[in-house]
Amino acid sequence: MPEPIEFYFDFSSPYGYLASTRIDALAEKHGRSVTWRPFLLGVAFKATGQQPLVEQPLRGPYHRRDFARSARLLGVRFQLPEPFPFPSLAACRAFYWLTDRDPALAKALARAVYHAAFGLGRDMRAAEAVAEAAQPLGIDPAALLAAINDPPVKERLRVETEAALARGVFGSPFIIIDGEPFWGHDRLEQVDRWLATGGW
Amino acid sequence: MPEPIEFYFDFSSPYGYLASTRIDALAEKHGRSVTWRPFLLGVAFKATGQQPLVEQPLRGPYHRRDFARSARLLGVRFQLPEPFPFPSLAACRAFYWLTDRDPALAKALARAVYHAAFGLGRDMRAAEAVAEAAQPLGIDPAALLAAINDPPVKERLRVETEAALARGVFGSPFIIIDGEPFWGHDRLEQVDRWLATGGW
Repeated sequence: MPEPIEFYFDFSSPYGYLASTRIDALAEKHGRSVTWRPFLLGVAFKATGQQPLVEQPLRGPYHRRDFARSARLLGVRFQLPEPFPFPSLAACRAFYWLTDRDPALAKALARAVYHAAFGLGRDMRAAEAVAEAAQPLGIDPAALLAAINDPPVKERLRVETEAALARGVFGSPFIIIDGEPFWGHDRLEQVDRWLATGGW
Repeated sequence: MPEPIEFYFDFSSPYGYLASTRIDALAEKHGRSVTWRPFLLGVAFKATGQQPLVEQPLRGPYHRRDFARSARLLGVRFQLPEPFPFPSLAACRAFYWLTDRDPALAKALARAVYHAAFGLGRDMRAAEAVAEAAQPLGIDPAALLAAINDPPVKERLRVETEAALARGVFGSPFIIIDGEPFWGHDRLEQVDRWLATGGW
């Protein structure tokens, strides 16, 4: 049984959102599973000296256009929330609280948060917003809100983010297949080919 | 007759090199021509606050790997020159000196410079290196060396680079189709589709 593909992403990343709508089906086509690993892109930005895309001259306007254009090409609903980018601590912590017990449920929560943030353009900063997105999945809002403030859960996110950087992850989405790194939603065709051929 | 596609690039850009091997054939498939427009990416980086890719922590090692991997996928010979990145003033000026009189010859020179820099890994900073790459194309080395120091040619490159930034160009390669901007070698599949469909 081959190792799962690793899918690193930040909940405040539009390209991560787009990749999240495709990555599991793509892996499944090649008999592979996917481990989702949200992390805090802002920590990586501090290491690489990057600023959020939309805050950069010239690059900002281009990427606003490109987010929407790439979503239209996939037929994926897209709306940028306000504010953007947004701190995604609450969603990340909720994810890690769930994933050891029920990775499929944690993925479902991640998809619900992404859909709310970039499909509907909702403000997903607050723990309450994450709890609201989780409720239709049968996740108890009070338990989720408590978990988000639980020190071990906070520590887990810190460790996961550090581990991501230690593996060379600096952007979102970032996909690792058997040690081979691919950065960006625009590398998914290469990911597909790598899975089919084992490399080139 | 539709307007030519505009192909902006820096001679020190590996992804620009990769795109240069594909862009004309891609446009021709859709009955379009391509205007090549080298510019100084360093000036754009000053505007956007970027640093050269390979000088950035985490991003540098990834991109060295991705340059070579993307080239292998295309079956394009690739070797990174030393130093990298390199100032491409001489190549840019030689290009603009030629292009008004003979755009096909200017493209041939650009291809020769790109091949020397990234196909063979040669140091193409010096005017003499550009002149040497130009000679097999029947371009007089003495005339080219004189042109590179000609004030109107220098001014032309300055104006072209300013005009690129004014159009929103911030990276290499950067392709504009009927006003629609596409950044990156990894957008060529979208460029292909845009040319086929007129947009989505």
